Amino acid sequence: MTTTDPDTGFRALDATPMGYGSMRRKEDARFVRGKGRYLDDIVLPGMLHAAILRSPHAHARIVSIDTSAAEAHPRVRAVITGETLAGLGLAWMPTLSHDVQSVLATDKVRFQGQEVAFVVAEDRYSARDALALVDVEYDPLPAVIDAQHALDADAPVIRDDQEGRTDNHIFDWEAGDAAATDDVFARADVVSSCDMLYPRSHPAPMETCGSIASMDPVSGKLTVYTTTQAPHAHRTVYALVAGLPEHKIQIISPDIGGGFGNKVGIYPGYVCAVVGSIVTGAPVKWTEDRSENLMSTSFARDYHMRGEIAATHDGKLLGVRVTVLADHGAFNGTAQPSKMPAGLFHVFSGSYDLAAAHCAVTGVYTNKAPGGVAYACSFRITEAVYLIERLVDVLAHDQGWDPAELRRTNLLRSEQFPYTTALGWEYDSGDYPRTLATALDMAGYDELRAEQKQVRSAYERGESPMLMGIGLSFFTEAVGAGPRRTMDILGLGMADGAELRIHPTGKAVLRLSCMTQGQGHQTTFAQIVAEELGISPDDIEVVQGDTDQTPFGLGTYGSRSTPVSGAATAMVARKVRDRARIVAAAMLEVSPDDLEWEKGAFRVAGDPAAAATMNEIAMAAHSDLELPDDVEGHLDATCVYNPPNLTYPCGAYVCVVDVDTATGQVKVRRFVAVDDCGVRINPMVVEGQVHGGLADGIGMALMEVMAFDTDGNHLGASFMDYLLPTAMECPSWELGETVTPSPHHPIGAKGVGESATVGSPPAVTNAVLDAIRVRHADMPLTPAAVWRAVRGTPLRTDLAIG
Amino acid sequence: MTTTDPDTGFRALDATPMGYGSMRRKEDARFVRGKGRYLDDIVLPGMLHAAILRSPHAHARIVSIDTSAAEAHPRVRAVITGETLAGLGLAWMPTLSHDVQSVLATDKVRFQGQEVAFVVAEDRYSARDALALVDVEYDPLPAVIDAQHALDADAPVIRDDQEGRTDNHIFDWEAGDAAATDDVFARADVVSSCDMLYPRSHPAPMETCGSIASMDPVSGKLTVYTTTQAPHAHRTVYALVAGLPEHKIQIISPDIGGGFGNKVGIYPGYVCAVVGSIVTGAPVKWTEDRSENLMSTSFARDYHMRGEIAATHDGKLLGVRVTVLADHGAFNGTAQPSKMPAGLFHVFSGSYDLAAAHCAVTGVYTNKAPGGVAYACSFRITEAVYLIERLVDVLAHDQGWDPAELRRTNLLRSEQFPYTTALGWEYDSGDYPRTLATALDMAGYDELRAEQKQVRSAYERGESPMLMGIGLSFFTEAVGAGPRRTMDILGLGMADGAELRIHPTGKAVLRLSCMTQGQGHQTTFAQIVAEELGISPDDIEVVQGDTDQTPFGLGTYGSRSTPVSGAATAMVARKVRDRARIVAAAMLEVSPDDLEWEKGAFRVAGDPAAAATMNEIAMAAHSDLELPDDVEGHLDATCVYNPPNLTYPCGAYVCVVDVDTATGQVKVRRFVAVDDCGVRINPMVVEGQVHGGLADGIGMALMEVMAFDTDGNHLGASFMDYLLPTAMECPSWELGETVTPSPHHPIGAKGVGESATVGSPPAVTNAVLDAIRVRHADMPLTPAAVWRAVRGTPLRTDLAIG
Repeated sequence: MTTTDPDTGFRALDATPMGYGSMRRKEDARFVRGKGRYLDDIVLPGMLHAAILRSPHAHARIVSIDTSAAEAHPRVRAVITGETLAGLGLAWMPTLSHDVQSVLATDKVRFQGQEVAFVVAEDRYSARDALALVDVEYDPLPAVIDAQHALDADAPVIRDDQEGRTDNHIFDWEAGDAAATDDVFARADVVSSCDMLYPRSHPAPMETCGSIASMDPVSGKLTVYTTTQAPHAHRTVYALVAGLPEHKIQIISPDIGGGFGNKVGIYPGYVCAVVGSIVTGAPVKWTEDRSENLMSTSFARDYHMRGEIAATHDGKLLGVRVTVLADHGAFNGTAQPSKMPAGLFHVFSGSYDLAAAHCAVTGVYTNKAPGGVAYACSFRITEAVYLIERLVDVLAHDQGWDPAELRRTNLLRSEQFPYTTALGWEYDSGDYPRTLATALDMAGYDELRAEQKQVRSAYERGESPMLMGIGLSFFTEAVGAGPRRTMDILGLGMADGAELRIHPTGKAVLRLSCMTQGQGHQTTFAQIVAEELGISPDDIEVVQGDTDQTPFGLGTYGSRSTPVSGAATAMVARKVRDRARIVAAAMLEVSPDDLEWEKGAFRVAGDPAAAATMNEIAMAAHSDLELPDDVEGHLDATCVYNPPNLTYPCGAYVCVVDVDTATGQVKVRRFVAVDDCGVRINPMVVEGQVHGGLADGIGMALMEVMAFDTDGNHLGASFMDYLLPTAMECPSWELGETVTPSPHHPIGAKGVGESATVGSPPAVTNAVLDAIRVRHADMPLTPAAVWRAVRGTPLRTDLAIG
Repeated sequence: MTTTDPDTGFRALDATPMGYGSMRRKEDARFVRGKGRYLDDIVLPGMLHAAILRSPHAHARIVSIDTSAAEAHPRVRAVITGETLAGLGLAWMPTLSHDVQSVLATDKVRFQGQEVAFVVAEDRYSARDALALVDVEYDPLPAVIDAQHALDADAPVIRDDQEGRTDNHIFDWEAGDAAATDDVFARADVVSSCDMLYPRSHPAPMETCGSIASMDPVSGKLTVYTTTQAPHAHRTVYALVAGLPEHKIQIISPDIGGGFGNKVGIYPGYVCAVVGSIVTGAPVKWTEDRSENLMSTSFARDYHMRGEIAATHDGKLLGVRVTVLADHGAFNGTAQPSKMPAGLFHVFSGSYDLAAAHCAVTGVYTNKAPGGVAYACSFRITEAVYLIERLVDVLAHDQGWDPAELRRTNLLRSEQFPYTTALGWEYDSGDYPRTLATALDMAGYDELRAEQKQVRSAYERGESPMLMGIGLSFFTEAVGAGPRRTMDILGLGMADGAELRIHPTGKAVLRLSCMTQGQGHQTTFAQIVAEELGISPDDIEVVQGDTDQTPFGLGTYGSRSTPVSGAATAMVARKVRDRARIVAAAMLEVSPDDLEWEKGAFRVAGDPAAAATMNEIAMAAHSDLELPDDVEGHLDATCVYNPPNLTYPCGAYVCVVDVDTATGQVKVRRFVAVDDCGVRINPMVVEGQVHGGLADGIGMALMEVMAFDTDGNHLGASFMDYLLPTAMECPSWELGETVTPSPHHPIGAKGVGESATVGSPPAVTNAVLDAIRVRHADMPLTPAAVWRAVRGTPLRTDLAIG
């Protein structure tokens, strides 16, 4: 529960703790002084600047590319085309989903904004100017924009680069027992079904993507500064794809201004920067502008879903059945884990005790930017939670049931954990009824319903255009990708390393494979070590984002930092403590078994005066203290952590909205969010994560959509068109918590980075539709969409065909 | 034995080996292209430049320092004096020998060249100019220059900063059994004794010392680029002395242009650069010029020794007795290991089977720069070897014995190893008679003696001023400081870490605590890993010299890189191989015990087709391969190596000189060097080390001396005065080898960095004195010294009092 300072209204901080607690973020000393060092802050001696020429067409054949005028520009140093890259075997690169993607287009362009040429010049302005001098002749082709027509017989074939291909089908994928699910539905008393679209959206991080590549021609060392959430994966990909020697590649993630999944993959500009540096012999910087980021980098969602839910007469949920048409854009996409083409969509069975569930997902190509899972990426969990939480409300709507009561009676009970879902996934822990009850109590659910009635009667009496809605969602997330079944990125497993060095004076340096994009890793990971070793978090430096300095691992996404790297951190700190025990025993001349650990020191049992603090132990471990023969000196330790299971955070959200039926305008009046992410390392940081995710939900539900016209022209390529929520649209959040530690995580933490992004859109949508008593309307519920929904004429906002 | 390419005359290279062998040095690709990155090549944004004002007096009281005119210089940003530092508690700093040293003088100056003020300016020229604007008033005092008068009753007390001090005595130290030694001498048939001075010399590395300090005021991180052989030790010292947090200190040794012990310690300029950066808020570079390096940084030797040797009538050596007066300069000194004030002088009992040995060393302060052990530092072994090898020749001279025969009959025999000396040190291995026999064979000793006779008869007949001399030395080195008894630097033990990371594609990165100054670590350490893992040295990157990237250890000096870090490297590679076996077993679905290692791959015994190469194993270890529960993923490993004993390389040297008695000029005609350093990782690199050390010996014996006048004015502050040998003075070296692996080192290597520096001076000296039949004359045997020795009027060259 948030403790608020009564004077400032801000969170009350704990004193800097020797472990968990709400301490100020260590990194903010730099950030609030403007001393962050983001990619574009980096200037290398002799650095050149690049710009990318992009396709104006969604689908067109390339007839010719003439670069001679651009090359003649006095400040241009190189113009790279797909042909240049083809000579190096780099015109196409693998995606992370067993597909290939064009680096610079050679045969065709396949979406508006696709990369066609890369110009390197002495300054950014000249590079941009010279783009206009590259003469590309296109032969336009009809485009597939609506996924629902991608498999039509007359649809143009987008991926004719693949031999023998005659359609736009990518994959069919099923999960769950179809026969058992059909059986459940046949026996059900009531069934509700609903078609819904989770529209294409964009992570829209504050900082766009970019890269600086510097190849040293003498040593052969390639250094790449790049905005990546997964530096080690990038290193291995460069080694595998470009054949560069992995031990001579250094990937450095500087400070990153938000990722949300947008910064997992390798974009064509990154590859071109490397080639540009090799060609020119100088460092090459490439950074996107906002339009480039919105048009060409990993989008999210774009899921056309038909869901059905089955129940008994008395409100016992029985099963869920879903078919999905997934729009993957022109290339099947960056950050799409190959083992499961629909990622972790399995959690569509939700937080309920269901007898059966089944889904069938079909993926198709369209003439849009590639991607598919990014945006607080969570690998399709967002869509799954939206589906089930909308279906529950649709069923309640159809049957006239109270959505809170329907959830309460069907939620998994704490004694059912660990619980294996109908899809075969094992939820680790939770006390769902308590989590929901906490949220309903905080919201004052019954009073809200009473108020709602009064508002509606005034509306029905024609006294006011206003309606009030109360929306609920209960979500179960599946985070911490690591277990074998979960993912497979280029054949790499998902074990992450942690290294802990203890210096002679007792100060510590922790090296991790994960990479913060603003989540506060410098602080929270130091707190994990502090908790285990009893030293101050201020005495622990956390190093990330430089492959030369950190152990291998697959980085930060899917809320996996705390579940995986956090576990590795606790384990490595415990290894240090185990070694410290042996050193302390040698110092105190007792057996290690005679020592008791008391945060920060080992004490001799029964002799209160005999003790060694961690600082003393650290110095002794670096001295010539005599240790047992099989014990090495110093205190450093390493750990590679391969989690046995995902962790399953959950939450209950209650959203209260006021809807102006005259204008369609929605105002989120209150938002109660009770999250259970297990043990909280730094509650303030957890709450910051939740705040951001809740705002995401308001954006998704009410404002955000990547829309296209029928020719494939992108209608959201600036923040004037692609609307993000601001503080203006957000209420003062009301946060609560329950804590059910994960039983298989060393400190019981579960990961919380995406919880609110996952859980909040259905709460907001449910609230709006609850207010206007409409069974379903697709997000975003813009004023126009709400205005028309109230009047029974739904609007499709993802295509400009309204 | 060197294999020479008959066409070029250069060493014939092996093909790049998957292990040991003469491959080209990997680092030379950078160096020969001028792409080295030495300290002065580094330019940080906004960097300021510093210069040091130094004392013109050897001994003077400071009356006042007025910095106002310097501070008024328009480009000066800060003037730091001892008073500034005193405010920070930094006016004095600890030496590595339980003494303290003035950073900037406050009370007195104690040697010519001592640091008095530190000026920081916008450019180096302005900083230098402003030195003249600092007005220091001195009250000159009488100086102690000749150590032999340091303990005189009327000698001025140099270290009156130490309360209650009334003399210049530092320590008395004894080793060996005095009574037993006296007894041996009493029973001996013959005794020879000799007074000898090993004069003060200087390591004179090609690159002088310097430092760039950059304190980030926001993050509190201090980055120091500095020319150090021991970056981690520097980090801990900054933490302990200045109270800076060790986890926020990064010491980076860039490429280093030679160290030879000169770059072990912390010089006042380094500390001032840090303070300068804190005071100005900008990076501060300070670099020495040549005179500063020669006048104020760690010197070497300066040992006044009286040695006695006892033997039987028939030439059996019985014992050695030594008294030493050690001149430590004004502060007892950088790189002086505190446990043993005379370092590893113990080896003065040499390579012979002696019944007893004893030494007594007295250390004194003088008004000279502090230091004492640096210069291929070897901690007084150089002096010890010179003493015993001169004494053997003096005895041979006195008795008319052949010096080769005297050595041959007294050398330790191979069956005596491991051999515990009269001083209690355990020599690990050797076959001394074979080593000597190899050298005598290569030299053609008997033919040389015959030729010498002819030359002398021509001389005696007055037909020629020329004489010919044949000088021998046989040395035993004691290297690889690490074992508990050997040293104690600030309480830190001498275990060194190694970390080996194996990337998914099978390329490797080795991180070490040692630091190359030109020895070829990038190559030889990669070869150790290559030998153990069967991968190419080109696929292994060796990282050193950056404390953020490397495990703790005490660095490179005393020939300890191969004995300590080389052992750590072999051990860590073997740990990787052990882990690879488990991974291979999982891949091949067999028990680890069923696998056979064949360089670079594990094979299933009895099934030649079933095998996994290291590359395949590396990728599998990063995949989601199922490993046993107690086995972590990846292949990385760490090791901290604490050697059980020193290693004891040895060698037999034969030097042939021609002496022009008319001018005193000596020409080294031939030099045969047979070294036994155990297993040779890269024979070419070993030979390069030997070449350098042999040149050192010519320099020491014939040319080099740090001389002073009676006022303490330094007479060797440039290379016009302090003469170094060049190719002109060196013959074409004739190298040979024997190989007796060290039984306790994992690959049997012994360290060779200082062997020739230790072994060559007595060989050259013995040759010259053999030519002119003089019992003894002190080094350097300059033409003047030789000319006068021939005429019976010896010259003392270390003081300008001839």
